[in-house]
Amino acid sequence: MAMKRVATSAIRAFTSSGIPSPSSVLTRELHASPGSKKIVGVFYKANEFASMNPNFVGCAENALGIRDWLESQGHQYIVTDDKDGPDCELEKHIPDLHVLITTPFHPAYVTAERIKKAKNLQLLLTAGIGSDHVDLKAAADAGLTVAEVTGSNVVSVAEDELMRILILIRNFLPGHHQVISGDWNVAAIAYRAYDLEGKTVGTVGAGRIGRLLLQRLKPFNCNLLYHDRIKMDPELESQTGAKFEEDLDAMLPKCDIIVINAPLTEKTKGMFNKEKIAKLKKGVLVVNNARGAIMDTQAVVDACSSGHIAGYSGDVWNPQPAPKDHPWRYMPNQAMTPHISGTTIDGQLRYAAGVKDMLERYFKGEDFPQQHYIVKDGELASQYR
Amino acid sequence: MAMKRVATSAIRAFTSSGIPSPSSVLTRELHASPGSKKIVGVFYKANEFASMNPNFVGCAENALGIRDWLESQGHQYIVTDDKDGPDCELEKHIPDLHVLITTPFHPAYVTAERIKKAKNLQLLLTAGIGSDHVDLKAAADAGLTVAEVTGSNVVSVAEDELMRILILIRNFLPGHHQVISGDWNVAAIAYRAYDLEGKTVGTVGAGRIGRLLLQRLKPFNCNLLYHDRIKMDPELESQTGAKFEEDLDAMLPKCDIIVINAPLTEKTKGMFNKEKIAKLKKGVLVVNNARGAIMDTQAVVDACSSGHIAGYSGDVWNPQPAPKDHPWRYMPNQAMTPHISGTTIDGQLRYAAGVKDMLERYFKGEDFPQQHYIVKDGELASQYR
Repeated sequence: MAMKRVATSAIRAFTSSGIPSPSSVLTRELHASPGSKKIVGVFYKANEFASMNPNFVGCAENALGIRDWLESQGHQYIVTDDKDGPDCELEKHIPDLHVLITTPFHPAYVTAERIKKAKNLQLLLTAGIGSDHVDLKAAADAGLTVAEVTGSNVVSVAEDELMRILILIRNFLPGHHQVISGDWNVAAIAYRAYDLEGKTVGTVGAGRIGRLLLQRLKPFNCNLLYHDRIKMDPELESQTGAKFEEDLDAMLPKCDIIVINAPLTEKTKGMFNKEKIAKLKKGVLVVNNARGAIMDTQAVVDACSSGHIAGYSGDVWNPQPAPKDHPWRYMPNQAMTPHISGTTIDGQLRYAAGVKDMLERYFKGEDFPQQHYIVKDGELASQYR
Repeated sequence: MAMKRVATSAIRAFTSSGIPSPSSVLTRELHASPGSKKIVGVFYKANEFASMNPNFVGCAENALGIRDWLESQGHQYIVTDDKDGPDCELEKHIPDLHVLITTPFHPAYVTAERIKKAKNLQLLLTAGIGSDHVDLKAAADAGLTVAEVTGSNVVSVAEDELMRILILIRNFLPGHHQVISGDWNVAAIAYRAYDLEGKTVGTVGAGRIGRLLLQRLKPFNCNLLYHDRIKMDPELESQTGAKFEEDLDAMLPKCDIIVINAPLTEKTKGMFNKEKIAKLKKGVLVVNNARGAIMDTQAVVDACSSGHIAGYSGDVWNPQPAPKDHPWRYMPNQAMTPHISGTTIDGQLRYAAGVKDMLERYFKGEDFPQQHYIVKDGELASQYR
């Protein structure tokens, strides 16, 4: 397995074992053997919900369902949801962990500073998809491997995007709010409720999720457009009927609905700023389950307030958890949720299995499935370059 | 045009014109000529929303956009939203109207008593689909024609049903409510959020709307079942991959999600009572955009409270508008709205055009498109028998 730090750390383990401090001796005697690892997982806490579903493996309490398996092999497995600030639980384990498992839903921000402190760190695993909470350049420079469970929740996210498109275009939420507040005013909903049929939907990015969305949109008889760095293969293009738009700025004004399906990279960060949003059709609906930081937060608020964006829905925020005063909570015509689309029970079972598989390969010194690598041998995967 | 009352009323018009009362003379001089008609439309009122969208033709103020056309031909066109009780505006016009246009979204209940009082009534038009607010047997016995704009909003309703399936299975609403109340608790959503993929979805009824729903569900890779009086044609069955279930009671326990797509008839009224609901899988999700009265109101509340039904979403109620104390407003895990799914702007434009077309044919004495008839020549359409 091509990870520079595996070798470096193995050498360090041997040399440092000569002069252990009392506490580290204790830890190592209890949990570590020459081949044993300290693995830290950072997941959202479930409290009373942890026991409500036996398949709810994605929370801190249920810890991907791999605790017994890891501990039976002599590894140490620490799990926490406490991830921010200098005194958090995660910070305590940074100096001696070997593997850090994180998730986009409750992201532990793996900064260059943390990577520098993490002398034993070899492997960063993302339980889910999207490793932008990791400073990937710093990870590459440090010789770490970063991998995610590619494909584990693409269906989950694509389904959720189609739900959000429908919620916005049908003007669902004002109707539901009438119900719970004791009102009945069909007109207040209907004057801006539309069918999806016949509308133009464009996806910014047509990778794994974007393509699944296009397939699901196909029977709705929309006009489907996509922008990406590369054209889809002709078979998939003809199957979905989506048209390639090489020039993003040329696609934007054509769309009644825009869906963001691009990873967060240096290029996409803040991409939808005031100028880009101005290119969108007046009254456009925007769905973004990709990453909050792809949007300029205030530009979205302004466009929702002016009506230029007639509806905005997504489950991604910058930062996460979204603070109580995040302006997207209060802007008009939003259909936001916490970061949830990729962590359905089905998605959790798939990414937990994927993490277990990669840990198993890591312990055996085997390679991961190629598509899982985000950083390998000091190189970033193509979508993050 | 085969309407008994057309002839009867024409005779009455001639005979009664001999001894008109002063007020009826005034009315007739202003509005009526031998061929002119008094047409009454009952639609939901839009108030400040009426002017917010030029295509918002479905409200009382915009009156299907046919006022100028009707009046230019010498017809009288009265539009109101005041439809209930002995002193309502509609009641005043019952004795002398020729045509009554109603809508399922704000249903004017055309009872046997009203039909008896409406001596000039010839034609009942439903702007939309679903004429169960009309006492169809009484209408047939009185020789009236009842017609609706079949097909006008089937796409609108089918899209909305798929939205509701996704809202329930993804557990969208608790997430959105967290956002607006300043919270962030992914676990409280995720422990009961699932992908649609791989689940079993059954539709009770596979008419025009049910079929469109099955087509839209196809790319979601579900197990699709349908119950209907008749099997679909083999091409559509193989296109959607849906399996026919002749025995409803055998289908019900198989489904993770049940969608009601049957008209309200004597047979379907109260069909989902306590016993029927008990046959559903525990934790089932139920979507009902068909008619509220197909369900036993309290049985649904009880099943939502016990968790037997894990989520219930629909836009139809019994009665409509739903009173402030309707228990479906307050039951757990509901994703209800007022009756809205068929009255998107696109749907309104289609059913307004359909009503205009039928009026035009009625004035000329021509037949309507066959599929629009609900009652003709004293006979109910097959789906209402």
